[in-house]
Amino acid sequence: MSATLSPASVEPAFRRVALLGVGLIGGSVAAACRLAGCAAHVVGYTPGPDAAEALALGLLDSVASSVAQAVAGADLVVLAVPVSAQQALFNELTPHLGADALVTDCASTKCSAVLAASAALGPALARYVPAHPIAGSERHGPAAARADLFKGALVVVCPQPPNTLSAVQRISDFWRALGGRVVELDAARHDRVFAEVSHWPHAVAFAMCAAIANGDCAEDALRFAGAGLRDTSRIGASSPLLWADILLDNREPVLACAEAFEAEMAALLAALRAGDRQALAACFEPGSRWRRALT
Amino acid sequence: MSATLSPASVEPAFRRVALLGVGLIGGSVAAACRLAGCAAHVVGYTPGPDAAEALALGLLDSVASSVAQAVAGADLVVLAVPVSAQQALFNELTPHLGADALVTDCASTKCSAVLAASAALGPALARYVPAHPIAGSERHGPAAARADLFKGALVVVCPQPPNTLSAVQRISDFWRALGGRVVELDAARHDRVFAEVSHWPHAVAFAMCAAIANGDCAEDALRFAGAGLRDTSRIGASSPLLWADILLDNREPVLACAEAFEAEMAALLAALRAGDRQALAACFEPGSRWRRALT
Repeated sequence: MSATLSPASVEPAFRRVALLGVGLIGGSVAAACRLAGCAAHVVGYTPGPDAAEALALGLLDSVASSVAQAVAGADLVVLAVPVSAQQALFNELTPHLGADALVTDCASTKCSAVLAASAALGPALARYVPAHPIAGSERHGPAAARADLFKGALVVVCPQPPNTLSAVQRISDFWRALGGRVVELDAARHDRVFAEVSHWPHAVAFAMCAAIANGDCAEDALRFAGAGLRDTSRIGASSPLLWADILLDNREPVLACAEAFEAEMAALLAALRAGDRQALAACFEPGSRWRRALT
Repeated sequence: MSATLSPASVEPAFRRVALLGVGLIGGSVAAACRLAGCAAHVVGYTPGPDAAEALALGLLDSVASSVAQAVAGADLVVLAVPVSAQQALFNELTPHLGADALVTDCASTKCSAVLAASAALGPALARYVPAHPIAGSERHGPAAARADLFKGALVVVCPQPPNTLSAVQRISDFWRALGGRVVELDAARHDRVFAEVSHWPHAVAFAMCAAIANGDCAEDALRFAGAGLRDTSRIGASSPLLWADILLDNREPVLACAEAFEAEMAALLAALRAGDRQALAACFEPGSRWRRALT
């Protein structure tokens, strides 16, 4: 399989790909998978109406009426559900998983995904290769899905000890076929890094927005917000329940970020209260230098 | 004077406008002022080479060799220097200020500007109308100046008790002629609102960047940063000394923001530590709703 989108005439890498979850991410996996010709058939399942909508939108070849029906005969199963739904889904799919079927997922935390899989999959754990495609948008649902969502996007693949090299290779090739730039990281390191670059910034943006919303400047802040506040607070508009789940799911690494942040904030506020210009600027210097390196 | 850019053939509102400071903001005031035809002559002064550079760039009609020379004969004096430099500049310009000359400024905090002016200007305080144009960029210096920097930008004008109505009217018209949308706010309210929408978000971004820079994920964070971290941290690249001055200058309102933020953060972390999904989502809800209203 080539690293770029392949013409549909190439022999598909998988006979039947089952998407469990076909919202923005699952629907985009389905669409990209069909465009890249890496599956002869793409079937989707959701408990609600999303799968039927995805079929109507042309993202899927067929819709299954249960997890069992979707997974039966699939040689690749892709989980694309919120982290909080993964454990139940692994439990439900395991009895129906084919003897050679591979499994991957899209969840934004990986240690908990591995834990959930370990508790359910048994020997099939060797064929589960965790992944986290770094793509998304503020929209959701199958109507927001796009075949090019993963084009040029980082996809972190987290090989785990029971994996065979061949399983890791085929799952990496799958994500590359969808347009992703595959990078390997250990699951624990993944969760630490993504706490820092994604989960903790969401917590900070939520707290900043809450302080404004609950204060006496909420109206004036809407009126006078410039680019600084707009950028800093943008992800504070994200879904509260979705992000409560993500933060809870990656609690320890997020709390480590909180501790480091609070130490910096304490130093900053001490310098501010003391009126110490040099100390205050010194608090800002390393971060300012780091941010200028982020091009 | 019209609220839009006027043709240069209209009688100028001012004979001689003196710019004290001709960096990004002062240089842009000079260029917009000449374009709008609201001054017969625009003179600039800086202690360093900025004024000469601004003249070479065509932003000014002439360069003065001292504050005294710039201010002598001016019927409008515009201060465009960092907040920390305003007190010394008010002290220096006062003896040379014409009997009818108006004064305005561009500083991002207004109570301290009024205090500095009060200590220096004497009876001329009635002719100083504080202003804060909400415009800028990450660039600085006269080479970054643009005649359209204030086009459509909010300009907060803060009338103070000794001001004559005529002085407030003429200064408001001046900022409108430069393209600004003038809004009046009391100086104390201005400082409270801008602590909330600008100064405190900078402190938060600086602390977030410092925590990353000083932690063990600095390199990986550069590699895996997505749009969320990029936006949230962008203003953390700002100048440490400039922002140390602004935060110190508006210390009490900024500390009030810090207190409100820390209360929200404490509630968030308590819910996270307790594993309480509903409480965590409830912490996020008001801010998320507020941010969605910021269109």
